[in-house]
Amino acid sequence: MVALLVEKPHALAMVPDTDPTVAAGEVLVRVQRAGICGSDMHIYHGANPFAVYPRVIGHEFAGIVEAVGAGVETVAVGDHVVVDPVVSCGRCYACRAGRTNVCGTLEVFGVHRDGGFRNRVAVPAANAIKVRHDLPFSIAALAEPLSIAANVLSRTGIGADDIVLIYGAGTVGLTVVQVAKLHGARCIVVDLDDARLERARDFGADVTLNSTRQSVPDAVRDENDGLGPTIVIDGAGVPALLEEACRVASPAGRIGLLGFSPAPCNISQQEIVKKELTLVGSRLNRRLLPQVIDWIETGRLQPEKLITQVFPAADAAEAFALIERDPGRTVKVQLDFSL
Amino acid sequence: MVALLVEKPHALAMVPDTDPTVAAGEVLVRVQRAGICGSDMHIYHGANPFAVYPRVIGHEFAGIVEAVGAGVETVAVGDHVVVDPVVSCGRCYACRAGRTNVCGTLEVFGVHRDGGFRNRVAVPAANAIKVRHDLPFSIAALAEPLSIAANVLSRTGIGADDIVLIYGAGTVGLTVVQVAKLHGARCIVVDLDDARLERARDFGADVTLNSTRQSVPDAVRDENDGLGPTIVIDGAGVPALLEEACRVASPAGRIGLLGFSPAPCNISQQEIVKKELTLVGSRLNRRLLPQVIDWIETGRLQPEKLITQVFPAADAAEAFALIERDPGRTVKVQLDFSL
Repeated sequence: MVALLVEKPHALAMVPDTDPTVAAGEVLVRVQRAGICGSDMHIYHGANPFAVYPRVIGHEFAGIVEAVGAGVETVAVGDHVVVDPVVSCGRCYACRAGRTNVCGTLEVFGVHRDGGFRNRVAVPAANAIKVRHDLPFSIAALAEPLSIAANVLSRTGIGADDIVLIYGAGTVGLTVVQVAKLHGARCIVVDLDDARLERARDFGADVTLNSTRQSVPDAVRDENDGLGPTIVIDGAGVPALLEEACRVASPAGRIGLLGFSPAPCNISQQEIVKKELTLVGSRLNRRLLPQVIDWIETGRLQPEKLITQVFPAADAAEAFALIERDPGRTVKVQLDFSL
Repeated sequence: MVALLVEKPHALAMVPDTDPTVAAGEVLVRVQRAGICGSDMHIYHGANPFAVYPRVIGHEFAGIVEAVGAGVETVAVGDHVVVDPVVSCGRCYACRAGRTNVCGTLEVFGVHRDGGFRNRVAVPAANAIKVRHDLPFSIAALAEPLSIAANVLSRTGIGADDIVLIYGAGTVGLTVVQVAKLHGARCIVVDLDDARLERARDFGADVTLNSTRQSVPDAVRDENDGLGPTIVIDGAGVPALLEEACRVASPAGRIGLLGFSPAPCNISQQEIVKKELTLVGSRLNRRLLPQVIDWIETGRLQPEKLITQVFPAADAAEAFALIERDPGRTVKVQLDFSL
């Protein structure tokens, strides 16, 4: 039994772990595959505002049910599951409003409590989402990052009439393209790097723009009969983009934010009111993993190309080093805990 | 026939007017009562970004149908109507999305085209909303300012579970209190002036706060089991308030903006994303006058106390001077065109 522990910022170690016990209402999951997220890197670097150290990180993971606690009826031993890392109280205002992902006492596996980069983890039964036995664990472990895209597009609303402008062709941008295309929307992706834009086209982007060479406002001016994109997603987390996003968005447009920068944004009431824009924050996901799994199992989402590298869990340090050294080569790097 | 014309900024005059003709699909309204809005004052002062001069102002008006053009079947000669000042194309993206008030070719009576401070005005039939004969024109003319409140609360969503923090106890704040109370929500109103706060209590505010003496964040800290207000409305149009609004709002909270200041707002992605806030712009109204009229005619809204003074139309200059000289004494000042 091992676990990948961030002892303190910049100190990562695979450490011995004890077998967790499974309490009533919990499910013990033997982790098979887990993905590394940008926020794992932030915790590693001490740049996540919510993490407390030492912390076993990891919140994108799938595995096999090894035991169930008293009263658990939704999954059984031997079931394959992916874990929704969002643990919420179910009683506060946000939970009552169906916004469990911003629960007043929110806890996230791998952030507020120890996560899934370990051999075994006990999770509340409601967080263990059953998947088909023939679905590879590698694909099941992509459901959480895809739920981030599903959540922001559920917040903005999305349909076949929409024209979605996406800043950033990283994991967030690519997953947003996939979920937006599944709804029939037109997708325009902006990035600074041609190789990343090529990847965005591969994932279904209709138009790609390299903003080092092209003015985004000029390039999108004729969209939507000259009114501009109906949805803008900041998949880059850059506060300075918000002003441009408000400027290019259509009347009645929606703007989705996912970044955690504390830097002030330079936007004016006038732009928001004049066009009745809607700016929405999107964090984690509100119980959307079953929806994402359904999209994957019915073939509507084909996310396997997101996985660029897989490392044995024992070589986690090498995986982290690759992401730091050569981010252009990586989209989703996974750790294999089945070995 | 006379009309109240802003010839150019700061030049207001009651001028002779010609009888308008009524085209196919239009309705000729003999104006009886019209309210003066803050945005009329802005046009008078040259501070409205959309107005072109010379302009007959006025967009809150009710009257009697005097003639109907070919094809008009929704109203008949003799009907009493209030006019929705928002003219939209019905075809662009915003209109197709039901957001007619931010139509790509939006025109507003009294702003983009000549308005209702005149004896007779021809309006599209869709903009003439029939009211009961026994509803005073003074009350009918309040439907448009009330629709501003209905619109922002329709944008934020509103229900009996909501706790609404309203900055500003002017016309916007008071109408928001009325519409929010009609939905059963709890209302907290903030202002700098005790007399205005007294009026807010009179209109149904549950709590009032004088922010010259009390810290708003401290005062609302215990609301919603410590999570804070679920809705914040900036009825004051002050960009600096947005930062505080984001800070005090509950997780899953909604913030409604109505102001037109071009000054930058000091907000961060972090606050918006962490709590998944929704910031919405609200402009004019999206065909909500029939809803407002229904609330009034069924007694659910009793807005007559909004009217603080009525002047004969011929004395419009005096009405404008009063609003400028003694804003604390006025909420809704109306002009009587029936004389």
